[in-house]
Amino acid sequence: MDSFGPDTLTQDAFLGGKLHLWQPRKGYRAGVDPVLLAATIPARAGQRVLELGCGVGAASLCLGARVSGLQLTGVEIQPAYAALARLNDPTFEVVEADIDAMPLALRQRQFDHVLANPPYFDRHASIAATNSGRETALGEATPLETWVKVAAKRLAPKGQAHFIHRAERLPDLIRALPHDMGSIEVLPIAPRIGRLAELVILRARKSGRGAFRLNAPLVMHEGPRHMVDGDSYVPQIRAALREGAALPF
Amino acid sequence: MDSFGPDTLTQDAFLGGKLHLWQPRKGYRAGVDPVLLAATIPARAGQRVLELGCGVGAASLCLGARVSGLQLTGVEIQPAYAALARLNDPTFEVVEADIDAMPLALRQRQFDHVLANPPYFDRHASIAATNSGRETALGEATPLETWVKVAAKRLAPKGQAHFIHRAERLPDLIRALPHDMGSIEVLPIAPRIGRLAELVILRARKSGRGAFRLNAPLVMHEGPRHMVDGDSYVPQIRAALREGAALPF
Repeated sequence: MDSFGPDTLTQDAFLGGKLHLWQPRKGYRAGVDPVLLAATIPARAGQRVLELGCGVGAASLCLGARVSGLQLTGVEIQPAYAALARLNDPTFEVVEADIDAMPLALRQRQFDHVLANPPYFDRHASIAATNSGRETALGEATPLETWVKVAAKRLAPKGQAHFIHRAERLPDLIRALPHDMGSIEVLPIAPRIGRLAELVILRARKSGRGAFRLNAPLVMHEGPRHMVDGDSYVPQIRAALREGAALPF
Repeated sequence: MDSFGPDTLTQDAFLGGKLHLWQPRKGYRAGVDPVLLAATIPARAGQRVLELGCGVGAASLCLGARVSGLQLTGVEIQPAYAALARLNDPTFEVVEADIDAMPLALRQRQFDHVLANPPYFDRHASIAATNSGRETALGEATPLETWVKVAAKRLAPKGQAHFIHRAERLPDLIRALPHDMGSIEVLPIAPRIGRLAELVILRARKSGRGAFRLNAPLVMHEGPRHMVDGDSYVPQIRAALREGAALPF
């Protein structure tokens, strides 16, 4: 899809209203994943941040809302999403490109942080999306390995990459990491205590030499099962989602 | 070391006294790791089980104490440890060999389960052990990749491999798995709630097609920190260590 017609957009509040983002009413809509990803990134003022597949900019703009003075750049292949990302923050530098064929000017730059929330949709396991924007955002037209390798290439020495993905793809993320990426850390994210992890955030550092660290899971909801209507987030998650707090790990 | 002199052995109780094992007083001594490994293996009567680097037989014999009717085979490179393993259970078939150069007769056999507790010692990070038996048992003379590949080769179709190792080696375990090993599952083991995993048990199935699963951590001790003298194990761990109970995951 190249553009959105009238009444096809919504403006949604993130971080308890600190951030408002235009999103397509149908198609890929940012959920909690980019917000959690942004909350875990230990960026500092003045650093250069690149988001691969930024969509409407949820992860980068959540990060920018928490840490001021960042130089935020996003790459987005879909023109309509890139346009919304620019609309959402005119200071957000958005490059319309396939991450596997980025313009030379971008390929000559280095970043202190690279982040990505690569598409989750498994086209072999699911029926095809009827919305082409949603299919691109949720499909795996670009292999996961490419996301990881492009991220690693764009990092400055000692720069960090962060990815959020379904937990079942953790082996693929690890196998895709080039050998010059070390100090790997994994934060499992589980819906409730005692459950399988559904998501993982993986962090790795360019030229890092630290040992792998498997952190205690971040548990999203209070209690062993769904009991209450409405918001059952644990305080740490609620603070990240509703107040823009960091989720250090 | 080829044999043990007088007063160099101890006989130690495992599984609350269900099992007694002769071990060298000095050198590598089985701790909780092989007991936990054995507790997680879903073996059934009649199945063929191979342990790589069996030492005095702790993991295999703990498994045999829980599940009757198994055909247990171990491979151990150090003659004195192999002899103790045979002493500990004369029905335990112990093959004295380097896992990377096993006799043809063994290489022609297939197993329903292969398990290993590969050496943990990092000779680059630590001072050399003064005891040669301990150094072999704790060193990494045989690369971790070899342990994983030999295990995979000896599995029957749909057979399962289980490894216990330091959590920081999880990426190496995953990268070493051949492509015909699937249905990978990881059980992190953490000393206390909220802590980094110190150990992982990794399970994979020959020709398995299931998605990767990252389980909730198994927490060893009650409470957020050391508070009581003596045994602070959580009930599930105490049952595995002291009563020979299974630790299903």
